[in-house]
Amino acid sequence: MNLLLFAAHERNAEGLVRIEDGRLVHLREIIGKGQGDSLRVGEIGGDMGEAEIVSMDEGHALLRPHLHTPPPVKLPLTLVLALPRPKMLRRILRTVAELGAAELHLINSYRVEKSYWQSPALQEDVIREYLLQGLAQSRDTRLPAVRCQRRFKPFVEDDLPLLAEGKQALLAHPGQYPPCPRGAQGATLLVIGPEGGFIPYEVEKLQTAGCEAVSLGPRILRVENAVSSLIGRLF
Amino acid sequence: MNLLLFAAHERNAEGLVRIEDGRLVHLREIIGKGQGDSLRVGEIGGDMGEAEIVSMDEGHALLRPHLHTPPPVKLPLTLVLALPRPKMLRRILRTVAELGAAELHLINSYRVEKSYWQSPALQEDVIREYLLQGLAQSRDTRLPAVRCQRRFKPFVEDDLPLLAEGKQALLAHPGQYPPCPRGAQGATLLVIGPEGGFIPYEVEKLQTAGCEAVSLGPRILRVENAVSSLIGRLF
Repeated sequence: MNLLLFAAHERNAEGLVRIEDGRLVHLREIIGKGQGDSLRVGEIGGDMGEAEIVSMDEGHALLRPHLHTPPPVKLPLTLVLALPRPKMLRRILRTVAELGAAELHLINSYRVEKSYWQSPALQEDVIREYLLQGLAQSRDTRLPAVRCQRRFKPFVEDDLPLLAEGKQALLAHPGQYPPCPRGAQGATLLVIGPEGGFIPYEVEKLQTAGCEAVSLGPRILRVENAVSSLIGRLF
Repeated sequence: MNLLLFAAHERNAEGLVRIEDGRLVHLREIIGKGQGDSLRVGEIGGDMGEAEIVSMDEGHALLRPHLHTPPPVKLPLTLVLALPRPKMLRRILRTVAELGAAELHLINSYRVEKSYWQSPALQEDVIREYLLQGLAQSRDTRLPAVRCQRRFKPFVEDDLPLLAEGKQALLAHPGQYPPCPRGAQGATLLVIGPEGGFIPYEVEKLQTAGCEAVSLGPRILRVENAVSSLIGRLF
């Protein structure tokens, strides 16, 4: 954790922030802070700065934040991912937030197992928790927007063309396609398939919706590594 | 697993490969193959192709490989990483092999905890196992070379200048440096620090050894994401 994040509603009437959860354990045991020390903090969705630890014991810490710096600019990236298996989803949520993507759409595909849509990892508070871990790592305060799209065809026919409007829309897919460009041309929409890839019908629908198929080279990457290496390449 | 890997010494006198370990479980239970089926295989350090399953029961499978395609070309990348904590090391070994780096040097740094050097994850057979998982994911057969360098100063003074010779040598470090270039200029050496970063003395020594400090932007990335996003940017 490189930034302790708190929500606006956690401030008391004097503007102080009381914490009692895992962040307290982190403060006391991992980074070994105590009363009078200061640390980097950020208000979720707001600015970043430092906070002084006004008081602290085993059950709580009271922080006085002094915020003065806006968070880094989000990447103009809309990421569209076939829903990964739950364990990988958690890591991907962290990674997406850490790398600074603005928007994430989790979509269905023929090769997405139906049970994945029942995973507790898709509950709103769980998603938020993993996103916050990514933000706390990379020192950002703004949560990416996450949407679930459980039906492939309505998404790709109705929503995707609107999402792609005014953006460079890319579909990263194994095969004989031109290499993914280096350096994004402004706002970018990037679609990445499930393990095993989109089926030909899906590739065709995505191309019809305006996505240009691009290759990642001869290696089949795990979705998480495809996400981070493409973001590194584009931004 | 997108490629079942076997070692040359696993072939019997007729050139058939008998497997009895986790690969058998994968064959039977994950991808549901049986006698007469074929699957993608590769010989470690050699070519790739298909194998026919000659026989199979609960205790073994016998494969007849037909190899005809060389593995993908390795990236001309020498990666120098401050030794990460063991849990992250395992993921990084997989990632480095998966992405196709040719060489990995794990080095000491002030912020590397001494106990990390005692980790079972550094045993030769454990390293090999994680590298093989990465190769099996991305369909490659050639293991990257991995070296451990437990003393920072001798490495950076004696070994690094030789390693960097004829290469573009980059040090990815948070701070006011020029951005990491897009697209590598031939063979590249890339140095990435520990969580918390190299200390100023180390940065200076690395620069003296010929490394150009470059920035990754305003976000502090986990080492694993720094590795994959920089590889995506450079190759």
